[in-house]
Amino acid sequence: MKFARRMEKFESNELLALMQLAENPDVISFAGGFPAPEMFPLEEIKVVSQNILCEENRSALQYASTSGYKPLREKIAERMEKQKGRFVDAEQIMITSGSQQALDMSGMVFLDENDVVFCERPSYLGAINAFNSYYPQYVEIETDDQGMVIEDLLDNLQKYKDRLKMIYVIPDFQNPTSRCWSKERRVEFLEALKDYDVPIIEDGAYSEIRFEGEPEQSLFALDNQNKVIFLGSFSKIFCPGFRVAWIAASEELIGKYLALKPGVDLSSSSFSQRYIDQYLEIYDIDHHIKRTLESYKDKRDFVYDYMKREFPKEVTYNVPKGGLFFWLELPEDKSAKELLTLALKENVAFVPGCSFFPNKKMKNTIRMNFSNMSKERLEEGLKRLSKVLIIYLK
Amino acid sequence: MKFARRMEKFESNELLALMQLAENPDVISFAGGFPAPEMFPLEEIKVVSQNILCEENRSALQYASTSGYKPLREKIAERMEKQKGRFVDAEQIMITSGSQQALDMSGMVFLDENDVVFCERPSYLGAINAFNSYYPQYVEIETDDQGMVIEDLLDNLQKYKDRLKMIYVIPDFQNPTSRCWSKERRVEFLEALKDYDVPIIEDGAYSEIRFEGEPEQSLFALDNQNKVIFLGSFSKIFCPGFRVAWIAASEELIGKYLALKPGVDLSSSSFSQRYIDQYLEIYDIDHHIKRTLESYKDKRDFVYDYMKREFPKEVTYNVPKGGLFFWLELPEDKSAKELLTLALKENVAFVPGCSFFPNKKMKNTIRMNFSNMSKERLEEGLKRLSKVLIIYLK
Repeated sequence: MKFARRMEKFESNELLALMQLAENPDVISFAGGFPAPEMFPLEEIKVVSQNILCEENRSALQYASTSGYKPLREKIAERMEKQKGRFVDAEQIMITSGSQQALDMSGMVFLDENDVVFCERPSYLGAINAFNSYYPQYVEIETDDQGMVIEDLLDNLQKYKDRLKMIYVIPDFQNPTSRCWSKERRVEFLEALKDYDVPIIEDGAYSEIRFEGEPEQSLFALDNQNKVIFLGSFSKIFCPGFRVAWIAASEELIGKYLALKPGVDLSSSSFSQRYIDQYLEIYDIDHHIKRTLESYKDKRDFVYDYMKREFPKEVTYNVPKGGLFFWLELPEDKSAKELLTLALKENVAFVPGCSFFPNKKMKNTIRMNFSNMSKERLEEGLKRLSKVLIIYLK
Repeated sequence: MKFARRMEKFESNELLALMQLAENPDVISFAGGFPAPEMFPLEEIKVVSQNILCEENRSALQYASTSGYKPLREKIAERMEKQKGRFVDAEQIMITSGSQQALDMSGMVFLDENDVVFCERPSYLGAINAFNSYYPQYVEIETDDQGMVIEDLLDNLQKYKDRLKMIYVIPDFQNPTSRCWSKERRVEFLEALKDYDVPIIEDGAYSEIRFEGEPEQSLFALDNQNKVIFLGSFSKIFCPGFRVAWIAASEELIGKYLALKPGVDLSSSSFSQRYIDQYLEIYDIDHHIKRTLESYKDKRDFVYDYMKREFPKEVTYNVPKGGLFFWLELPEDKSAKELLTLALKENVAFVPGCSFFPNKKMKNTIRMNFSNMSKERLEEGLKRLSKVLIIYLK
């Protein structure tokens, strides 16, 4: 049987096979990007449930409208103004089935074969996976602690100006590095792009997951050319199980996504949308987020302290001010995949960073989640990993 | 700003503009394909809700696995054997976010630009929309009351054998015509294809929506070459608001879909999947389906009797034994789009059939839903439509 060419990318994926081993329940895995289940507001969701499941709400069980449940879009629009600093109305919001769907649809709206996508170096693996379906070429722009390096961006704009179709960035607590762009870099970035009529996809999935410091303005708020498309999600600030996320953009751009949505899944779950809407109606989500962040900060400190104390000094890493990940670098000649093979024998796992580079892989990098597990389990996992690191780096 | 070429298909869609007018609440619309909300088992879903939202079930709010919640996949596998007559195990089932997602993903797995897709004439508009993203070419195979016309299928197999990549069919109560293929035609169809290693997508969304007669065996059960991919859905037999559907196929083929699923939406809603699973666990869905079918049969009879009595004799239509639609034909020189323009002035709407033909449109056809509205509203809608028809055909 013949398959589409895109399937070749997925054949015989050695890394996928390793990651499947990590699903064994004996393995303590730092691999996923899952939020902490103990923070899910279960009691509140029970109350929401009682409010939703009543005779007047039968439409919660029916197909939703293409753009999403209007009261929810109105609430999101209001939050966008409060949290992201730009006024939008409900018609500038489209609900998606998780932010991952918004990534897939962004590829669908903008990309044809051999079109060029600029992304950070490294970038989010899930976005690369999603865009791959449309056969683009990636140009990885150098990134430092402040964000994209503007000189490299300008060089590549010169080089690819005719083929550039989309720019994808995660300015807040990027997956995988947890970097956050500085205000200056955000302004310079938009300034560098002012003569290019190219959409900028701003992935804001982690933008409210900040443990310290003040929020930076979103690119969406700084943009005065209506070319930033903001992707937001309830997965990290509420619960991922509902699969409710959103796209905010100019009405014209939202219209493009709306045109494709019926073909992709008709509509996102009306049931899930009502839950989020009703939760926002009767509870204070900001209070919930604050509690979650305290727990994450505590876990981050715990993991950081452990690594500082026990990990070999050749392993370097950041101290994330937000997000869900540590990003580790081994000495340059070392391979995180080799390390993972050893680690799995000790029943511990992580994601080798190579998957986050669409072109030139950095084989010595590691992404490590700290949000999902209890501190007891984190400690046991760190103990195992530390042992493997000491053997591997000897 | 530049968009992908696929967006051109959606620009300035005159029909879309008309259909938006149909969303006005004053309009009685036969356009949607929605099930009857009064049949949704609200009380049972309340009980399910109480069972799910408890401490041991926090994972219902977390990301689900790529293939879907295993207990649900096991239950679906069991039902597949009972309802569709072929043994499958849970590893041959993948959960999707509505059956529409399974259509989109089928295009993604199999189609590159200019690949040929065979479909019935007419075929499901939503499938055409989904496949369009991958730039295929359609070959419409003639279809009569028994199913695809085998001579036309054989002719086109000869003609397109090198470019044919996928066959898409809806053998049970097809959207839009509500036709059901005969047993003989199913067997002949598979026989005609036995030397072609081409996937057959069997869309079974309506396969349990039968008011009279005995179920025909699915292509999936008749296939002994592992090339039929069955798409099933809870939208029509339970509630669409959960967006839970499934793909059943050989493990090898399911593996292809699984490879793409993380890029498309990471996973389907674990929350929704738990609801369906728990409902199937404690209630008898077959009893629920039986009640729903009685109500649909009653509505079908009501609409049929009205049309027979009041519609101009030049309008012809079928008597659907299942599914959710009547398929009407006006005299050949008439246009359903023209009729819709008049109908909207009388606050009544339907879908002009032209959208269901990817290539050679039949402009004189109409799809009319009968499942969604109350009989009172159906009657008022029919009254308005009858008036418009009489004027238009005079």
